[in-house]
Amino acid sequence: MDRNFAIRGIICYTPGADGLVVRENAYAVCEEGVCRGVFDALPERFGALEVVDCTDRLVLPGLVDLHIHAPQYAYCGTGMDYELMEWLDRVAFPEEMRYADADYAARAYGLFARSLKQSATTRAVVFGTLHVQATLLLMDCMEQSGLVSYVGKVNMDRDAPPELTEESAERSAADTRRFILESARRNYRRTKPILTPRFVPSCTDALMAALGGIRREYGLPVQSHLSENPDEVALVGRLQPEAAFYGDAYDRFGLFGDAGGSAPGLNTVMAHCVYSTPEEVQRLLDNGVWVAHCPSSNMNLGSGIAPVRRYLERGLRVGLGSDVAGGTTESMFRAVTDAIQVSKLYWRYIDREAKPLTFPESLYLATKGGGAFFGKVGSFEDGYAFDAVVLDDSVEPQARRLPAASRLERAFYRELDKNGIAMKFADGERIL
Amino acid sequence: MDRNFAIRGIICYTPGADGLVVRENAYAVCEEGVCRGVFDALPERFGALEVVDCTDRLVLPGLVDLHIHAPQYAYCGTGMDYELMEWLDRVAFPEEMRYADADYAARAYGLFARSLKQSATTRAVVFGTLHVQATLLLMDCMEQSGLVSYVGKVNMDRDAPPELTEESAERSAADTRRFILESARRNYRRTKPILTPRFVPSCTDALMAALGGIRREYGLPVQSHLSENPDEVALVGRLQPEAAFYGDAYDRFGLFGDAGGSAPGLNTVMAHCVYSTPEEVQRLLDNGVWVAHCPSSNMNLGSGIAPVRRYLERGLRVGLGSDVAGGTTESMFRAVTDAIQVSKLYWRYIDREAKPLTFPESLYLATKGGGAFFGKVGSFEDGYAFDAVVLDDSVEPQARRLPAASRLERAFYRELDKNGIAMKFADGERIL
Repeated sequence: MDRNFAIRGIICYTPGADGLVVRENAYAVCEEGVCRGVFDALPERFGALEVVDCTDRLVLPGLVDLHIHAPQYAYCGTGMDYELMEWLDRVAFPEEMRYADADYAARAYGLFARSLKQSATTRAVVFGTLHVQATLLLMDCMEQSGLVSYVGKVNMDRDAPPELTEESAERSAADTRRFILESARRNYRRTKPILTPRFVPSCTDALMAALGGIRREYGLPVQSHLSENPDEVALVGRLQPEAAFYGDAYDRFGLFGDAGGSAPGLNTVMAHCVYSTPEEVQRLLDNGVWVAHCPSSNMNLGSGIAPVRRYLERGLRVGLGSDVAGGTTESMFRAVTDAIQVSKLYWRYIDREAKPLTFPESLYLATKGGGAFFGKVGSFEDGYAFDAVVLDDSVEPQARRLPAASRLERAFYRELDKNGIAMKFADGERIL
Repeated sequence: MDRNFAIRGIICYTPGADGLVVRENAYAVCEEGVCRGVFDALPERFGALEVVDCTDRLVLPGLVDLHIHAPQYAYCGTGMDYELMEWLDRVAFPEEMRYADADYAARAYGLFARSLKQSATTRAVVFGTLHVQATLLLMDCMEQSGLVSYVGKVNMDRDAPPELTEESAERSAADTRRFILESARRNYRRTKPILTPRFVPSCTDALMAALGGIRREYGLPVQSHLSENPDEVALVGRLQPEAAFYGDAYDRFGLFGDAGGSAPGLNTVMAHCVYSTPEEVQRLLDNGVWVAHCPSSNMNLGSGIAPVRRYLERGLRVGLGSDVAGGTTESMFRAVTDAIQVSKLYWRYIDREAKPLTFPESLYLATKGGGAFFGKVGSFEDGYAFDAVVLDDSVEPQARRLPAASRLERAFYRELDKNGIAMKFADGERIL
């Protein structure tokens, strides 16, 4: 199959957060990897296209994971009885040290990429470790997986175990340049580098300044963490008293979106934003920074619930993240339903004016919402990258036939991405 | 395999809420369906037993689901954008009407029982509908599944659609007697009837009084719902102003445990208890009533979070329920991790003195905690019913070997009950 075809099936997508489109026996057209829209009958101009028959199967945009830690996948689902800062010291950091060993990295990242390939995720923004060689291996694995991704070599030069503390800001910056240049040399088609200061507690001002310079020099996107947990926010306040708020500690160094309007490929995504102050929310908005909402991780590490409804009302850019291994699964189906569940508790206990997320809204976040970080991604509208997942929900017992929209909702709540994915495409190329 | 054998493997269980026992290369002994303890080497007196070799596999007690609605399984994972009372009217009740049709009931209950058979659940307390014939079909299906269960014909004679409102308290009581007698006539080995007033809003005083009489006459356990949602609690207050609190509306009719100390087979379980007042908690304690904590359902229907830590501190009897289809999965592995997750949010936002549940504590609730409703169930201690699940976690990618306790935790967080169950036993009989 080349990148020109039409899929016939139950085409489901969310052009806006306020509505789910479900069209049965419809055609989604792919030309050169780009979606040309959805049609009840195939228009004559597409008459020569191969038709992939997925009749009565659910066809939806590929899911976008805005925040996932590849090196943490090896212990995913363990160590969940700790809160964030203790979990980093006891669970996350000891594992990340292992990636100094390239053999271990190759094995572990191979398993990570295989699991993402088998999932419903078509695009991801990925943390590696501080190790250049291991992170390049991770890029190799991601490239082979067929997913489209940004992958970051992590920067951290303070407040971590010695094995995970780069010896100086200069050395960290030099390694980052080496990582960028080598990844360019490898000519990946789907895999790009992203600047990745771990979080403010791990990065000195000197390092932040150096990364800001690298960003200007090479024109790179940025990923990091923001306002995840009260203890962490308090620590940042102590470490960076000159910053007006947590996010300002990135913005001062040009690592927090782009006040001049972000250019494609220069976007910034910040994971969590559970405790963002009004000033920080305003800056997120002004700078066009994406929020990666990670509901599972925020529960598991005792952090809390991000006020996603409020962010949507303010017009913030929001997507979802699995945050493996603060999150215990790479399933973005689970992230969609987790986001709904925690929004109901937020409404019940914290803010009765913040209406719970609906299923279409949460699906929107996981497709078009996060997809926008990559450009025109996450929808079957004309001009969008053709990322698609085809689900066979006949694996689910059926006492009676359910409406198509209910079948889609069920597929998410019952995590059919584990055993129901029939096909998967990114940029019109078949992955599964 | 008869009911006399020993399993060799990684034996995991929670004799108390405060501790997980994990014994590698150990033997759990089953004699006549009863566990005779766990041993590092097989004692001579058991030397003649067949040894089932599950070396390096995780062997844990069967999971106990204290609250599940069989007729709601057909739409499980759909209709999740409603709050409780609207969800009953729009989703649950229309489905339950279908069980007037015995053909539909046979098909739907067959699928339900098959899914429970394939799950990690070995014991369940199950709601049917008000239909006698359909509920007897459900008992047939449960008996064939190999699980041990209580199954209830639901009583409801007010405040529901006409198709789901029994014509009088007398008729409802007469149907209940018919259900009890016919289920006795069928001589089930594993399946018993349980009295099931749906909840206070659905039952007139006359019906409650009649059920109290039936309970005294036949000596039956009771299941129902209690203090699930603020709107429901308010409705009960209006409907039953003479009751001191919600639970008192059951207790007045002898349907709320047993003030004289409950006899085996006469236990009461109340689902949810999210909004129980101090007086109600005291009565739950005094009457020895089990709380079925259903975290997933309580999120999905916007109800809230039950204060499980406080209940455990008070010495209440607590187990877990999947509450299909307020819960979206029959997986009790998921219930275990959901209970932990919501307890972290409860601690974070509602009561900073209520420590989050740990993994061993939540596993305890789902095994020995709920198991006690059935008697000596949910542990591998001497004298306990031999209910066991054997997990093959080699289906999970492994970059390195994890400690056995971490493998157990991972199996729960990553829901290995979906694809990792190698064997399952109830009362020493092999189900899978």
